[in-house]
Amino acid sequence: MINLASMFLHQSVLITGGLGFIGSNLAYKLLGLGAKVTVVDTLDPDSGGNPFNVEDIKDHIQVIQADINDEDQMKRAVKGQKYLFNLAGQMSHLGSMQDPFKDLNVNTIGQLRLLEVCRQNNPDVSIVFAGTRQVYGRPKYLPVDENHLLTPLDNNGVSKRAGEMYHIVYNRVHGMATSVLRMTNVYGPRMRIKDDTLNFIGWWFRQLLEEKDIQIFGDGMQIRDLNHVDDVVTALLLCATHPAANGKIYNLGGEPINLLNLAKLMIEVNGSGNYKIVPFPENRKRIDIGDYHGDYSLIKADVGWQPQVPLRDGIAKLLDFYRTNKKHYF
Amino acid sequence: MINLASMFLHQSVLITGGLGFIGSNLAYKLLGLGAKVTVVDTLDPDSGGNPFNVEDIKDHIQVIQADINDEDQMKRAVKGQKYLFNLAGQMSHLGSMQDPFKDLNVNTIGQLRLLEVCRQNNPDVSIVFAGTRQVYGRPKYLPVDENHLLTPLDNNGVSKRAGEMYHIVYNRVHGMATSVLRMTNVYGPRMRIKDDTLNFIGWWFRQLLEEKDIQIFGDGMQIRDLNHVDDVVTALLLCATHPAANGKIYNLGGEPINLLNLAKLMIEVNGSGNYKIVPFPENRKRIDIGDYHGDYSLIKADVGWQPQVPLRDGIAKLLDFYRTNKKHYF
Repeated sequence: MINLASMFLHQSVLITGGLGFIGSNLAYKLLGLGAKVTVVDTLDPDSGGNPFNVEDIKDHIQVIQADINDEDQMKRAVKGQKYLFNLAGQMSHLGSMQDPFKDLNVNTIGQLRLLEVCRQNNPDVSIVFAGTRQVYGRPKYLPVDENHLLTPLDNNGVSKRAGEMYHIVYNRVHGMATSVLRMTNVYGPRMRIKDDTLNFIGWWFRQLLEEKDIQIFGDGMQIRDLNHVDDVVTALLLCATHPAANGKIYNLGGEPINLLNLAKLMIEVNGSGNYKIVPFPENRKRIDIGDYHGDYSLIKADVGWQPQVPLRDGIAKLLDFYRTNKKHYF
Repeated sequence: MINLASMFLHQSVLITGGLGFIGSNLAYKLLGLGAKVTVVDTLDPDSGGNPFNVEDIKDHIQVIQADINDEDQMKRAVKGQKYLFNLAGQMSHLGSMQDPFKDLNVNTIGQLRLLEVCRQNNPDVSIVFAGTRQVYGRPKYLPVDENHLLTPLDNNGVSKRAGEMYHIVYNRVHGMATSVLRMTNVYGPRMRIKDDTLNFIGWWFRQLLEEKDIQIFGDGMQIRDLNHVDDVVTALLLCATHPAANGKIYNLGGEPINLLNLAKLMIEVNGSGNYKIVPFPENRKRIDIGDYHGDYSLIKADVGWQPQVPLRDGIAKLLDFYRTNKKHYF
């Protein structure tokens, strides 16, 4: 495996969506590796961007509040960067159906604009793009590998797929260094849990901590796989630096678990709590993907990544994090 | 097979891109079937839109000059329509690399806008979207069926894929009647041959008629399949009316032929002419898809379509068409 410390020491790194959940965890890690970190974030109220996410490191990183569609600001931001972790995105599936143009604007138009800005101002920057398992739609087989058909079930799956395709075209046609990670359910400190729009797992943590019943939609038999954000950060760093990742699209993935067992595990680790099985709301049901877990053997073979954080440990640490930092996330 | 005449008699039909090559041929056909035809076209100088394309029927159809991104005009245009043939698009592969936002604006943003306008103003309209084989990228096997991986090699493949995905999402989530035809090389009367930006076949016809050498890039061994526009029009009409096509994506396709043999056939039918093998220009080579021909067995099984016009006949008729109408196309 690549020695990540030596790769990032004194290197300039830009993170779009850098005040969000994954972006801020990445910023902490990179700072620890000795990198010079700049983050760009819109702080859109519907997104995961939260200034508190970088509270402990705010004096050691540069923060630019900007939309990735803002060419002038992005031109300045990308210049001189060696790495670009491109995590800016609209992530809400329901939100993409309610406001499809907002979703398209960040996930497709903004991605193309950012790639063009890089091509014209810093074509040598190494880019890793945060993709999503949502591009597959409803799996035809499990675990889902990268050759699975792409039949997105919602606008978010469409816009994210277009965003990743642009990254691959800019690799093949313009020779830029890009790779894509299709993420599955990511959890860990600094997730947005103000409401239930961005992810169900964070919302379950909040329900648990507020001593409310965890609401499980459907029958609880639905399969998902979870990655702790620390593992996702490692994957991002490996893909930015490993030559084998150039031009590639990789699934992440973890141990499959059904939602009922996940809720039970969270309650067990917490020491108390309840769950309730409730009917699927109609607007969510229509875009639900059914069972999913990702086959991550390709990224394992190419760059040596595999998830390390046991689910039980990740849950315990996250409960602690939110107990301590409740007022910044609830 | 469906009786197309009875399906379209007195029906209101909207064609986007209706002054273009395929759109205008469709308009002629629909008028012949007794439909009430409205066409929308931007008449963008880089597109195939040409007022002369509807010269013979201009007093019998309604023509609206508008961008599909113009919500107000499109709202009025879609109201009361039973069928919408959605053919507006940016088709140039090279153009999509030179001006990626123009390409994205029509092929993705405009498509989403049009679908939203339909959803809000005429959700019962039956929509057929003109897709492209370009979404596949470089084929991994031949003939290419609809399960082939989608790895577009240029921005145009990305934007067109996003456009077709939105049509399918609006079918599945909003229950709208949509289908997609992935077209291969289409030829026939009213193709734009003012320059070589939109298709190589039209440009070869012009070279032949101007008594210049047909320029074949590469070695001439490259395989393509061609569909005459009359066959494509039939496919569009069948998909708009056949219940089996609802929510489906279909390949079109024809007899495979290599480019050298195509050039020789054109010269033979013309009775004179020459070809020349020339090196692939670098900017075209980078986005070239190699060999392609489409497997059209799915649309054949579902709606009974198959190509009918023999290539030799199509070439002969097209040579006649351009000889007669040279001044409107050269």
